[in-house]
Amino acid sequence: MRRWTLKAGATTVEGLVLEDVPMPVPGPGEVRIRVRAVSLNYRDRLVLQGFPGMRLLERDLVPVSDGAGEVDAVGAGVETWRVGDRVTPYFFKNWHDAPPTEVDYGLGGHDTDGMLAECVVLPASRLARAPESLDFAETSTLPCAAVTAWNALHGGRPLGPDSQVLVLGSGGVSLFALLLARAAGARVFATSSQDDKLRRMISLGAREGVNYRDTPDWGRAIFERTGGVDKVIDVNGTSSLPQSLTAIRPGGEVALVGLMSLEDAPSVATQVLFKGATLRGIAVGSTKMYDELSRVIDQHRIRPPIARTFRFEDARDAYRAQASPELFGKIVIAL
Amino acid sequence: MRRWTLKAGATTVEGLVLEDVPMPVPGPGEVRIRVRAVSLNYRDRLVLQGFPGMRLLERDLVPVSDGAGEVDAVGAGVETWRVGDRVTPYFFKNWHDAPPTEVDYGLGGHDTDGMLAECVVLPASRLARAPESLDFAETSTLPCAAVTAWNALHGGRPLGPDSQVLVLGSGGVSLFALLLARAAGARVFATSSQDDKLRRMISLGAREGVNYRDTPDWGRAIFERTGGVDKVIDVNGTSSLPQSLTAIRPGGEVALVGLMSLEDAPSVATQVLFKGATLRGIAVGSTKMYDELSRVIDQHRIRPPIARTFRFEDARDAYRAQASPELFGKIVIAL
Amino acid sequence: MRRWTLKAGATTVEGLVLEDVPMPVPGPGEVRIRVRAVSLNYRDRLVLQGFPGMRLLERDLVPVSDGAGEVDAVGAGVETWRVGDRVTPYFFKNWHDAPPTEVDYGLGGHDTDGMLAECVVLPASRLARAPESLDFAETSTLPCAAVTAWNALHGGRPLGPDSQVLVLGSGGVSLFALLLARAAGARVFATSSQDDKLRRMISLGAREGVNYRDTPDWGRAIFERTGGVDKVIDVNGTSSLPQSLTAIRPGGEVALVGLMSLEDAPSVATQVLFKGATLRGIAVGSTKMYDELSRVIDQHRIRPPIARTFRFEDARDAYRAQASPELFGKIVIAL
Amino acid sequence: MRRWTLKAGATTVEGLVLEDVPMPVPGPGEVRIRVRAVSLNYRDRLVLQGFPGMRLLERDLVPVSDGAGEVDAVGAGVETWRVGDRVTPYFFKNWHDAPPTEVDYGLGGHDTDGMLAECVVLPASRLARAPESLDFAETSTLPCAAVTAWNALHGGRPLGPDSQVLVLGSGGVSLFALLLARAAGARVFATSSQDDKLRRMISLGAREGVNYRDTPDWGRAIFERTGGVDKVIDVNGTSSLPQSLTAIRPGGEVALVGLMSLEDAPSVATQVLFKGATLRGIAVGSTKMYDELSRVIDQHRIRPPIARTFRFEDARDAYRAQASPELFGKIVIAL
Repeated sequence: MRRWTLKAGATTVEGLVLEDVPMPVPGPGEVRIRVRAVSLNYRDRLVLQGFPGMRLLERDLVPVSDGAGEVDAVGAGVETWRVGDRVTPYFFKNWHDAPPTEVDYGLGGHDTDGMLAECVVLPASRLARAPESLDFAETSTLPCAAVTAWNALHGGRPLGPDSQVLVLGSGGVSLFALLLARAAGARVFATSSQDDKLRRMISLGAREGVNYRDTPDWGRAIFERTGGVDKVIDVNGTSSLPQSLTAIRPGGEVALVGLMSLEDAPSVATQVLFKGATLRGIAVGSTKMYDELSRVIDQHRIRPPIARTFRFEDARDAYRAQASPELFGKIVIAL
Repeated sequence: MRRWTLKAGATTVEGLVLEDVPMPVPGPGEVRIRVRAVSLNYRDRLVLQGFPGMRLLERDLVPVSDGAGEVDAVGAGVETWRVGDRVTPYFFKNWHDAPPTEVDYGLGGHDTDGMLAECVVLPASRLARAPESLDFAETSTLPCAAVTAWNALHGGRPLGPDSQVLVLGSGGVSLFALLLARAAGARVFATSSQDDKLRRMISLGAREGVNYRDTPDWGRAIFERTGGVDKVIDVNGTSSLPQSLTAIRPGGEVALVGLMSLEDAPSVATQVLFKGATLRGIAVGSTKMYDELSRVIDQHRIRPPIARTFRFEDARDAYRAQASPELFGKIVIAL
Repeated sequence: MRRWTLKAGATTVEGLVLEDVPMPVPGPGEVRIRVRAVSLNYRDRLVLQGFPGMRLLERDLVPVSDGAGEVDAVGAGVETWRVGDRVTPYFFKNWHDAPPTEVDYGLGGHDTDGMLAECVVLPASRLARAPESLDFAETSTLPCAAVTAWNALHGGRPLGPDSQVLVLGSGGVSLFALLLARAAGARVFATSSQDDKLRRMISLGAREGVNYRDTPDWGRAIFERTGGVDKVIDVNGTSSLPQSLTAIRPGGEVALVGLMSLEDAPSVATQVLFKGATLRGIAVGSTKMYDELSRVIDQHRIRPPIARTFRFEDARDAYRAQASPELFGKIVIAL
Repeated sequence: MRRWTLKAGATTVEGLVLEDVPMPVPGPGEVRIRVRAVSLNYRDRLVLQGFPGMRLLERDLVPVSDGAGEVDAVGAGVETWRVGDRVTPYFFKNWHDAPPTEVDYGLGGHDTDGMLAECVVLPASRLARAPESLDFAETSTLPCAAVTAWNALHGGRPLGPDSQVLVLGSGGVSLFALLLARAAGARVFATSSQDDKLRRMISLGAREGVNYRDTPDWGRAIFERTGGVDKVIDVNGTSSLPQSLTAIRPGGEVALVGLMSLEDAPSVATQVLFKGATLRGIAVGSTKMYDELSRVIDQHRIRPPIARTFRFEDARDAYRAQASPELFGKIVIAL
């Protein structure tokens, strides 16, 4: 069996090495999955490059959290899965409904081997049934990106048909948030620095877009058009917070997804206070959220937008493509 | 009729002037209240001193939001109130259930005359029935301080008998939060810089206290004792946020009440993100929250803790007493 | 000014009499509306025919709850409305958010004059702003029928994009429930005794229909297709309850709207118990629900389906048309 | 190892037979528990006597759902439990959060062997950690009776410190509902046919009691005292429903727990409709509810009321005692 390993201390895609290893055997309570597709997230680049202020990898790691495949062997005592079942992993080990006191780093990060391999072995309880309406490539995009969007939309204040939502940019989480918010009947607004991306988001269901290069005070612009949105899906983290807080209605919520910029937060507390705003940190989501997401994907025939597909051998190119500023949609590696 | 007026540009209690004015007459839809008690909040000192970065008063103002009294005249078309009804004002003009797009500054602030007068005239819709179990002095403490505590506890994630709550310090909002959280069955922890105040909070129902002078890493201490509290009622604003975020469980909430310190926020966004935390700004609350609060006060026979009572003529002394670091409980001015 | 009066003791449309009366003058806190359209509900027929087991009208009454018009005069002290504002009445007098202890009979019933007049005077607090996207005829259909549908969908367990809903028949409430559930992203199923009505409901967004004459065990049929729906909007009342309870998933909800059949309930308690079901009685809804509905109508450009429009003079014919088994959509009387 | 077996076709306690069987061995994913206490519910009598209209046992069965003990052996692949852990079983096999489509009959019923044995083997996922503050006898009372009460209180509309609750009678579910509602700050009312039981319920925290023999219109009596309670915990099933629906406020909820009387339901649908009431069927509850309950029991030091304790050998006497009309509290069998 082949797998990609990210070597300890690696900081570039050159640190990714294709290895031949013996086929793993599932122990009691475990399941082996033949991986059919994996997809990349911004988070996978952070695992590779290291987070600012965090240590580099201390051991070799099979990277990537998001993938999909078929069960091809089950260990003793496993009754929930059968050979041939189409599955994806859950991102976290033990976040089912209420968040756990001990947060782990997620699949394909820190010390937990991920999905960039021909076969992986995982505990039976860590697997989710794939949505029926999606193929493996599409399914592979769900565990991190789509669950994050679901949590951002539905994990806090309920979202309904009278809600207004603003998504920032057109990364994977933002595109999923757009599609899922539309499925809930919400009116969606979008920002981008590129007019053609705004057009594509409108064709996916956004009502209107604002080019944040042309309109630096985009939070105010959105507020004036909407009377204040109910939620902002803020994937930039701290740098966009003041504008996001400007865009929401009193009592609105900013879902803070972003790992993109970790410089010091500007003084947002005053805005939060006087607007009665909620700022909610989003770190992927629970297994329950995955299951809800999965039902909605089937019910609404939501198709995850895939930008490009790479071969397993070309994983390094896939990583490079994931970093392109032109990217619109998910990067998938098919096996 | 006499009333205290805070003169435009005032910054100290010397700016408060006792005036004789004609008795006001309620117009259509209005009600006149004979004020029996008013109580002071930290916010009233800010109205007097000015908020950092905000303009001083631009016109003379009758200050103070919190008071209680009896209806003694009703205008044309008023069917909801009768002479003799015991009432308090709502803090905000138009926040009933969903927060309004236009937030006003509240009674006794900016350009809206407040309660520090022998009689006041208010729209019928701005009055709430006083809880039956409280006298006027006790009732006068509710509109700002107790509603703020109620919003902080109940306005976001539901609070129940399996919740753990941390209140910071022993100001009015914190004491109400302690009493109201206990009424909901929650386990309450408290901080203070004074051991005798911690003892008094324990006698009011807190399970345990932490002296934050002796234990600068109090957030960690609370987390270790509790496994992470569900909510922190953070009345200090930004300075205590990092410790408050340390004290909560993953997915927990910090209710950011504080006007006390408006220096730049520390870098809290990272903590919020990785802990899946919610940071919710609390600016008093809705009329609906007042009504819920009022029922609970009657049902649980909650007695607002009153520290000292002053005569109407001694309002300036009341303001001075409200600023004392020894204060434990509310300052009331009785008429 | 002309108005239709239903004479005390009336039981047929012959009891409706067109009268000339002086133009009413709004008192303090009141508003006069020039009515532009009214629409009829099944409930208006019950007011006329009498409910089984209830007394007939004891005084002359201007009937009909649902209407829309323009403000054309305001009384003293009214600040919320101006001449020219487009408005509808709220059905109930005092149900804003939490249901009131004293339930009234609603506009146009018992002892409260309704909308079947050229002008009506109502308290300012009883009026709602009309949705911007609807004309008067469409707006006139909202107060009872659409609010009932909203309450049935959103007043209990939250409805979202992963929900499945069953609507029974194609009366006004059912058609609104279909359109509003679709706006929330739900998958909707419908029943009817007429295949062409099922086709029309599918063209309005229903996924599938079941003809309950051909399929008497329609509850089972729906359960098998859906795995159990989350909600049934049961407008028939008790006669369809056993099948409705069969159609829901364990833990699902039946919104019991129906006034249509008041014969003794079959033994539903056993089904409710073993399925962990919720049976929720729906009697129109709150002013808050109207306001939420109104936003969603504008946001989703929902057009109330109007079957036929009558002239004011032909109100008796409108009542007769409302009773037709062929009816699909609302009966409107335009002024 | 010894166990009690209820023989197929049994209808009286004489059908309970004490048997010697080999010690069971846990397979992969399973755990063996040394049982320390079991407790009886009304439901266990129904399993023995047969439900009206349901078939008698078709095979020999180890009865009783509720018990507590220590893990004394774990099968392959079990990582969540260790020898010595104090545990109780979950009542249902697969109801974790959302109710399952396939409802099973619960432990100790139909075809699933229960806890009335010296040792039992169960899947690791079917076990809950015992609350720390309870001994084995007390813990044994939780899985069915206390979880049912928790579901009735917290599974529907949220219960808070401004809620009013009515519990009917003094069976196990009602006593738990009383204690748990008090922990949430609710005001609790009770009914009984015996004044001394009412006194005991008041000593456990009820505010007031109504003797339903002396006051046949007890629903009206409660409504007048309370303005309508928010919830009734109705353990009688259908016979008391009309009075329960009379006792609630408009929009209130009746939690229908009862298996006690399954005669045809009276015509409750009309009452449900006009009062906007919710009727919710309660069939024990989810594993999530057990976990919430468990935390609250520890936090509030709630002690399940135990009436009498029997030896394992005297299980038949325990069953007889459980049927006594004088019973107040739980019947426990200690091992």
